[in-house]
Parts: sequence; C-alpha cells; structure tokens
Amino acid sequence: MRFHTRKWVKPEDLNANGTLFGGKLLAWIDEEAALYSIIQLENKKVVTKYMSEIDFKSSAKEGDIVEIGIEPVKFGKTSLVLDCEVRNKMTRESIIRVANIVMVNLGEDGEPKPHGKTQIEYVKDRLAQTGH
Amino acid sequence: MRFHTRKWVKPEDLNANGTLFGGKLLAWIDEEAALYSIIQLENKKVVTKYMSEIDFKSSAKEGDIVEIGIEPVKFGKTSLVLDCEVRNKMTRESIIRVANIVMVNLGEDGEPKPHGKTQIEYVKDRLAQTGH
Amino acid sequence: MRFHTRKWVKPEDLNANGTLFGGKLLAWIDEEAALYSIIQLENKKVVTKYMSEIDFKSSAKEGDIVEIGIEPVKFGKTSLVLDCEVRNKMTRESIIRVANIVMVNLGEDGEPKPHGKTQIEYVKDRLAQTGH
Amino acid sequence: MRFHTRKWVKPEDLNANGTLFGGKLLAWIDEEAALYSIIQLENKKVVTKYMSEIDFKSSAKEGDIVEIGIEPVKFGKTSLVLDCEVRNKMTRESIIRVANIVMVNLGEDGEPKPHGKTQIEYVKDRLAQTGH
Amino acid sequence: MRFHTRKWVKPEDLNANGTLFGGKLLAWIDEEAALYSIIQLENKKVVTKYMSEIDFKSSAKEGDIVEIGIEPVKFGKTSLVLDCEVRNKMTRESIIRVANIVMVNLGEDGEPKPHGKTQIEYVKDRLAQTGH
Amino acid sequence: MRFHTRKWVKPEDLNANGTLFGGKLLAWIDEEAALYSIIQLENKKVVTKYMSEIDFKSSAKEGDIVEIGIEPVKFGKTSLVLDCEVRNKMTRESIIRVANIVMVNLGEDGEPKPHGKTQIEYVKDRLAQTGH
Repeated sequence: MRFHTRKWVKPEDLNANGTLFGGKLLAWIDEEAALYSIIQLENKKVVTKYMSEIDFKSSAKEGDIVEIGIEPVKFGKTSLVLDCEVRNKMTRESIIRVANIVMVNLGEDGEPKPHGKTQIEYVKDRLAQTGH
Repeated sequence: MRFHTRKWVKPEDLNANGTLFGGKLLAWIDEEAALYSIIQLENKKVVTKYMSEIDFKSSAKEGDIVEIGIEPVKFGKTSLVLDCEVRNKMTRESIIRVANIVMVNLGEDGEPKPHGKTQIEYVKDRLAQTGH
Repeated sequence: MRFHTRKWVKPEDLNANGTLFGGKLLAWIDEEAALYSIIQLENKKVVTKYMSEIDFKSSAKEGDIVEIGIEPVKFGKTSLVLDCEVRNKMTRESIIRVANIVMVNLGEDGEPKPHGKTQIEYVKDRLAQTGH
Repeated sequence: MRFHTRKWVKPEDLNANGTLFGGKLLAWIDEEAALYSIIQLENKKVVTKYMSEIDFKSSAKEGDIVEIGIEPVKFGKTSLVLDCEVRNKMTRESIIRVANIVMVNLGEDGEPKPHGKTQIEYVKDRLAQTGH
Repeated sequence: MRFHTRKWVKPEDLNANGTLFGGKLLAWIDEEAALYSIIQLENKKVVTKYMSEIDFKSSAKEGDIVEIGIEPVKFGKTSLVLDCEVRNKMTRESIIRVANIVMVNLGEDGEPKPHGKTQIEYVKDRLAQTGH
Repeated sequence: MRFHTRKWVKPEDLNANGTLFGGKLLAWIDEEAALYSIIQLENKKVVTKYMSEIDFKSSAKEGDIVEIGIEPVKFGKTSLVLDCEVRNKMTRESIIRVANIVMVNLGEDGEPKPHGKTQIEYVKDRLAQTGH
C-alpha cells in the first residue's frame, strides 16, 4: 500500500476526550478515497457507495502525525474498490482500516457509467503519452 | 427509532460535486453515537470501537435538512451497540444506515470498564429520582 | 418545548477561556430556528428577521452535551415566531433562551410571502396524506 | 462608532440560501465584543452576559466586505455595556445592530469582579505611560 | 500603518504546540490584503500574485488578541502593492510582517486590467460625492 | 521532490471569486512543512521561522486535486530548510512554490536546540534498526 496524504492532529481534530475524533478520521478516509478515484478514473463525478466494516484499532493524540494509504482492490465496470488504512507515521501502528470502499463512476446525468479502466495508471505516464 | 439531531446542509458540508460530502455524514453519525452513549452510560469517556458496513443509499443537496436517528441494539458489559440512520427530514428517504456501532465505556485509566447499564434510561426519570 | 438537536461541546467550540463560545451558541440557535421554520413552512427560503433579548444564564464546558429546543409562539401571515432554549442535556439546566425569534417566509423574488400555515404540522402526517 | 474588524464573506459563511448566515454574523459580533472588552478591561476572563434585541435589517452576499463597529455605552462596576453594529463596507448600509451587549469582568474564581475602569483607554497611551 | 481587523486567538487557531498556527496567520494576512484591495480598487475580482519574504518574529498564544495592519506601498497600472503587519494588540509587539504583497486587479475575463487608481480613497469620501 | 499530501478543493476552500483561497494554500504549505520537519527531526516542538518570497503562479478551482511536495534544502544546526511546491495533480502545473522555508527545532524551554540530524531519514529504516 502507498501512503500519500499526511495529517497533523490539531486541536480542531479532537473529540471531547482529547483524542482524535473518529468522525474526523472517517472524513479524511472518505476524502482520500474520493480523490484517489478521481485521479484513477479521470472523472470528477465519483461518489462513495459502500464501506465495509470499520475497526478502530487505536487512536491518535494532539501533535501526532498520521498518514493515509490507499490501494485498489478491484476495477469493476462502473466501480472501483479500494482498501484504505490510516496509521501513525512515526510508529507505523495501524489506527483504522477499511478493507473495501466501493466508489462509483457517474456520468453527466448522475447515473453509473462505465469508466473503461482496468488497472492503476500513473499521471506521469499519462502526461508522457500526451507529450506534456 | 427516535430521531433527534437535525442538520441543515450548508455550503461547507458539500463535496466538490455539490452534494453532501460523505465524510461529513460519517462525522455527524460518529458524533451522534458518541453523545447518545455518553447520555446513556453517564460517562464522558466513551469511544467508538467498531462500525458495521455502510451503504450510501442516497445523498442530500444544499439546503436539505437531514435528521439523525439512534436506537440501542444491545447493552454489553463494557459496550453499547447502536443502530444509526440518517434520513431526509422532508421525504423520510433513508440516506445512510449503520446497523451496528459498538461504543466502549472507558475508565479513568483508558481501559474498558463495566458500565452497569442494561436498558435505556431517560434523563427526566433520573432527575425525578434525584429530586431535581 | 421539544428538544431535538444535540451538540457535543468540542475543542473547536470553545472560547479562549475554555468555556463554550457564546457566538457558537448563537450560531447553533440560528441554524435550529432556520431548519425548524423550513420544515414547518415547507419553504427553503426562510430568513431570520428578529431576535428578542438574550440572557446568557450559564455556560458549558468541553465534553458537555447540550440540546436545543424550539417551540412555535405564533404563526403570522408571512412570519413564524419561535421560542428557543438551549440547555445542558444531563442536568437540564438552562444555558440560554431567546423567547422570540421572528422568521420570515420569502418568495422566489426574495420578498416576504404568505405561507398559509396556522399551526404545527408533523412530517409523518403530511407523508401519510400523500400516501408515502 | 469606530469600525475595526473587517470580514470577507466567503462560501463557508453562507447559509443554504446563498446569503450570509445569520448565526455567523452573531458569532462575529460576540467575538468582537469579547475582544473589545478584553482590551478595555485588561482582563482575559470576560464573558457575554446579555444581548438586547436584534433586528436583521439587511443581509450580505458572497464577496461582500462587512465591517464591525463597537462603542462603549456604560462602564458598570463589574460590567461593560457595548453597542455594536455590522455594516456593508462599500455602501455603509447597516446589516445588524445590537444596542446593548453586557460583558462581565470575571476574577480568577469565575465570579464577577470590579474592573476599576470608567472610560475608554487606548493601548498606545498605556504603553506611553509604561515607557514602551 | 492603520490597523483594522482584530482576531481573538481561539483553540481552533492553534497548532499542535499550543501556539498560534503559522498557516492561520498567513490565511488572515491574505484575507486582509484581499479585502483592502477590493475596497481600494472597487472591484471584487482581485487576486494575490506575490508575497515577499516572511519573517515569523514572535508567536501568540490562546486568548491573545492580534490586530492586522495594511498600508499601500505602490499603485501600479493593474496592481496594488501592500505592506502588512500583524502585531499583538496589548503589547504592540510585531508577530509577522510581509513588506510587499502584490495584488492584481482582474477584468471579467480573468485577465489583468488597469484599475485607474493612483492613491488611497476613503469610502466616506466616495459616498459623500455620490450623495449618500 | 516527493509529493505526499493531496487535497481535494472543496467549497470551504474557495475565496469569494470561486477560486482556491490563497490563504488556505499557505496554511496547507505551513502544515506540510511542520509535519515533514517533525518526522525528520523526531521532535514535536518545531516552528516555522521564515519563508522566502512566494509567487502565486496559477490557481485551482472547486473539484481540482492538488498535491504538496517537500524537499530538504539544508540541515542547519538547529534548523531545517525546506523547498515546497504545490501543483495540480492532474496536469502537474505548478500553483505555488516557496523555495526556502526555515523550520527551527525547539527544546523543552522553547529555545532553539541542536537537532543532531544531517540528512534525510526514512521512518521504515529507523523502525528496522529498533527491531520493529
């Protein structure tokens, strides 16, 4: 799994117990899944359709740095299934993992639309092909 | 299921597609589960431990009003299992449902601690008993 | 008075004294008044026109749960007058009360427009009538 | 009245009608009243106790610039009464006015405490006296 | 330099060290430069093009009040150069200063457009001329 | 330069012109510089001391994905100098670059303190050495 986005746990991210608010963590995961899908499917109209069960293994506290990893599980016809993990950057301890997040590719009409992708592509390769 | 908290979908709650950001929805659910548990268990140190699979059935758009419902499923020894649904207030159409959210009651030391509750209690009844 | 929306006082809601920021409280009240009116008047274009005097009776601190209650006072021709109270969920102690909040129903042109309502209606009754 | 703080109305400040959210406006007023009092009373423990009736005269839209003015009305023994107005910076049209905001000076114990001030003081004069 | 906008350092403005988050400070400066330019150039389409080097001289902590000052340096043909300083309101100690912030006036097409201004104007003088 | 953190430009990130608010961009850069330094210097007390001039080359709009890159320029005795760039993820067009950001390592007393590092280290190598 490749870990990209990093977050610094700040006071605004805490719950009333002084630990990282679980809802914030879920919002970070959903955002990362959305942007990963937008990049892969080259379409801005992508929505979250399903998340498999979520186990909150550990938490984080103010000042900790967490990193969010995403890996594609399966390219469906109109969907992309992702595996996502958030871990503590310094100790690599896992904080939360969602093994299956189903993202759906939409057309202009808001209905599911085939995306035509079957594997991961890297932006640099796409740019090379188009002469950028 | 009883629906309490209501939210007005404002520009700050939208994703880049102009619909309610899924991560925001998950954050709202997590907050509602936490405060419901704090009220029932009469303990501020309660954390989210697990969420069962999540199906995003429909979305909401700017200006919509959504309401969040919670119902207890099971009182464990140190846990409380909740069923949560978010629906559109005007049409009652379901937006998202998480059938099992496991909340854990913690002691001062941060370890799971028996909460001693076996059923729902209402604050007004508690206050009556203590003479408020 | 019926209390619906509940809020968990988090670090981002505090003022620099470590107590609930009064401005946040007023923002919560204004949002609750707006969404209550939208539901009752079945119109999304509703604006706050007036609030009667506000007495800050007590405050709340991090981790407290507050609940917001709304009750209609009077259905005017183009307006709806509401009574709003915020209290501590656990002790039922009143935090703030605004006895008269005047909300105005607007037409497409942004001008006040008669709303045709004279009493509270419940969404479930409306849905029953329309066969939902 | 002297107008200091200016705000640029951004998407995050709008309600679902696309105009400035009234709750945001009230939060801005409360913050300005608090910081004006802290400066005048030279005490960080100052709380909002009361606001007189509020008339929402006009609104603002995205991209507008508003400015917030404060003027002391009366120096009480433990209180400071302020008059506050928010207006559109470009047209000087009044948006909202709260004629009496009562701020209370607190001691370390959280109880009202005499502040010993009877008139406006300017920071530059204070600094001159102390040789800064 | 004239100092207008004031900010109260609240928990949501802190970094994980408990001091004012530098990024927040930069966001406040950028907003103040934008609104100052909009007022002077009487055009809402103004963008930040350049900032000269930034020296973080001191910080601020929770509960401090800071004020933001702006002064025009030069009126270019399509640009306005500003000098900006943020200081602690109580001690007048400088927190940060950006000596040159270049703002560019844009036309409807998003391209730089001459603004026709050569000196500071005050809104009250403009209003007097137009009979407000 | 290695690009880690990715951001999805949402309505709350826009200025009143509907493009990415420059202040938000600076806040993202400051956060990324802080967390990169914390990871490299293995110390949570790290502050931003200086940023070299900033050229806003292009902007981003709602729904765009941007990525933030960081590269160390120089390891000083108590400082770490970083080069930071933000670019559009899809087109790789540069949005903003800050060639020198000086971060300072602080001791418990808040004073600059030697950090003892002379080159980049990877967390995975550190963990391997300590037998994780």
